[in-house]
Amino acid sequence: MVSPQERAAMARARELGASVLGTTSPNPPVGAVVLDADGAVVGEGATSPPGGPHAEVHALARAGERARGGTAVVTLEPCAHTGRTGPCADALLAAGVARVLVAVPEPTGLAGGGAERLRAAGVDVEVGVEREAAEEGALAAWLTGARVGRPFVVWKAGATLDGRVAAADGTSRWITGPVARAAVHRLRAGCDAVLVGSGTVLADDPQLTVRDADGRDAPRQPLRVVHDRRGRVPAGARVLDGAAPTLVSRADGPAGLLAELFDRDVRRVLLEGGPTLAAAFLREGLVDEVLVHLAPKLLGAGPSLVGDLGISTIGAALSLELREVTPLGGDVQIRLRPTGHTGVGPRADGRD
Amino acid sequence: MVSPQERAAMARARELGASVLGTTSPNPPVGAVVLDADGAVVGEGATSPPGGPHAEVHALARAGERARGGTAVVTLEPCAHTGRTGPCADALLAAGVARVLVAVPEPTGLAGGGAERLRAAGVDVEVGVEREAAEEGALAAWLTGARVGRPFVVWKAGATLDGRVAAADGTSRWITGPVARAAVHRLRAGCDAVLVGSGTVLADDPQLTVRDADGRDAPRQPLRVVHDRRGRVPAGARVLDGAAPTLVSRADGPAGLLAELFDRDVRRVLLEGGPTLAAAFLREGLVDEVLVHLAPKLLGAGPSLVGDLGISTIGAALSLELREVTPLGGDVQIRLRPTGHTGVGPRADGRD
Repeated sequence: MVSPQERAAMARARELGASVLGTTSPNPPVGAVVLDADGAVVGEGATSPPGGPHAEVHALARAGERARGGTAVVTLEPCAHTGRTGPCADALLAAGVARVLVAVPEPTGLAGGGAERLRAAGVDVEVGVEREAAEEGALAAWLTGARVGRPFVVWKAGATLDGRVAAADGTSRWITGPVARAAVHRLRAGCDAVLVGSGTVLADDPQLTVRDADGRDAPRQPLRVVHDRRGRVPAGARVLDGAAPTLVSRADGPAGLLAELFDRDVRRVLLEGGPTLAAAFLREGLVDEVLVHLAPKLLGAGPSLVGDLGISTIGAALSLELREVTPLGGDVQIRLRPTGHTGVGPRADGRD
Repeated sequence: MVSPQERAAMARARELGASVLGTTSPNPPVGAVVLDADGAVVGEGATSPPGGPHAEVHALARAGERARGGTAVVTLEPCAHTGRTGPCADALLAAGVARVLVAVPEPTGLAGGGAERLRAAGVDVEVGVEREAAEEGALAAWLTGARVGRPFVVWKAGATLDGRVAAADGTSRWITGPVARAAVHRLRAGCDAVLVGSGTVLADDPQLTVRDADGRDAPRQPLRVVHDRRGRVPAGARVLDGAAPTLVSRADGPAGLLAELFDRDVRRVLLEGGPTLAAAFLREGLVDEVLVHLAPKLLGAGPSLVGDLGISTIGAALSLELREVTPLGGDVQIRLRPTGHTGVGPRADGRD
């Protein structure tokens, strides 16, 4: 049985995990809440950047002696191995918690076994509490990495009602309004890398940094990545301005590019265009989430949201599942998942 | 001062008006509620088809003697002239109501003066109560007709996320799911005419009738209209199957076509495509409302939502205002209004 306080603590743990999305890779963005023996919240924590403490350790440190006999609520099974930090299972035992609630079981052989170790020491452990919500949330990208060994790809595109991403003369600033543009910066901040094709660099020369509401570059910047198989990106492109690290990749295709990014500890990629690169990823089934920022405008001409998918008849259309529609100022954000998206079957993967 | 009961009665009056949308043209779809002296609802009514009683007369008949000293709540100013039926203002006086609440003042010189006549007889009259809600609702099309002398045009299109209305091979059945398709039939039922271009007839051969959930033709059918300037529609087209009246128009362009329809008492037209006809209406500013049924699919090729609008740069994009986003099964309905839409300035127009 999971109590209402424990459910509230799990919801809060998910929020804590989401608050560090984009700062923990290759580690998972985990959230943890510690309740005392009476069910009161006495500690909260989220994963630090690599090398720093895990979520449970932060939450236990804040709880101190009040953790004894209490309950730890975490979004991911505590690790049982020693990486750059000690095993979280041992920290929970040392703190004397009587009960541990876990949303998602650890999918990797390397870090797994935390629940087992805790149970062997007499702790009451429940695994799988509100698991789906946690898997769909901040952990989704890390889980894709653990299970299929590649980064999770979020494809974001801004388009008019008639699906145009630019006008006939190539102009595209600004299709969407300021609220949608601010949302894109928040979205970038939650990713490890931002990816465009060389066509987008040549057409729009974007800077691809994360800027705050005042237009200043944020302290932490995701890796900027340009897929440039033919070496077309000029040295003067803004993406090479030194404001953030940049990778110009000559990888052969989407899969090779993702492998290259995975090796650099990238777990969540924001694919920002253009239509040709998006089509290449979609054709290979390498898009995990789609965000369309739809502007209430009509152009009647200009490049479309996505390039040729090799689909010629309506029955073969690429199907997505609508997840959420959110107003974004005068625009609308539509969030979708491809119907057969990734995350199938476990695969071992390292975790610090 | 308008009481909470009176506000509730006005909301109900709007609903009553909406319930007869598509059945009253060239008369306005009006709703009326009669409250007794204590504020209790004692009668409701909506406009009958042309030649039948107006909304107030129905509501008064149901109220009977209980209307005496009570309040009549109507979406449009009661008429003061004798057409096929007697003036509603006189009916209200005969029933002995003490107070009349009106949402929208009568915009035509011919039927106007009802509020004045009632006031002269000592009735307490308030005009403009929740006027905007009534003008945006069932009365919108009739008001456009009264003010600018042409039918109100609702453009409806079903498209994929990338703005395609058909696949590369021309197939388009079914882009949207059954819930959206049922919504289209309800939408047709609320219009006086359903309009397509000859290209749509040649490509899809639609029947354009209103069918119920079991696929049976509804008893009342809107006029089917094909814009066919070049005489391309074959005699065997389904739109000529006799299941509903059909007009094949050779009008020179959108304005001429709308004039022809207005003369046939059409006040609300559903423009169902295709991209070329929609573009022609949009270019001339002759679209009053846009409904896009967006399917969560990608095609990557095929004809787009709207044809060439003569727009080549992003700053010149045709802007719309987002009104409402509604789920339709797995699809989404987006309702919009062009930012400079019709309804400017009064113009005299007949009304029965």
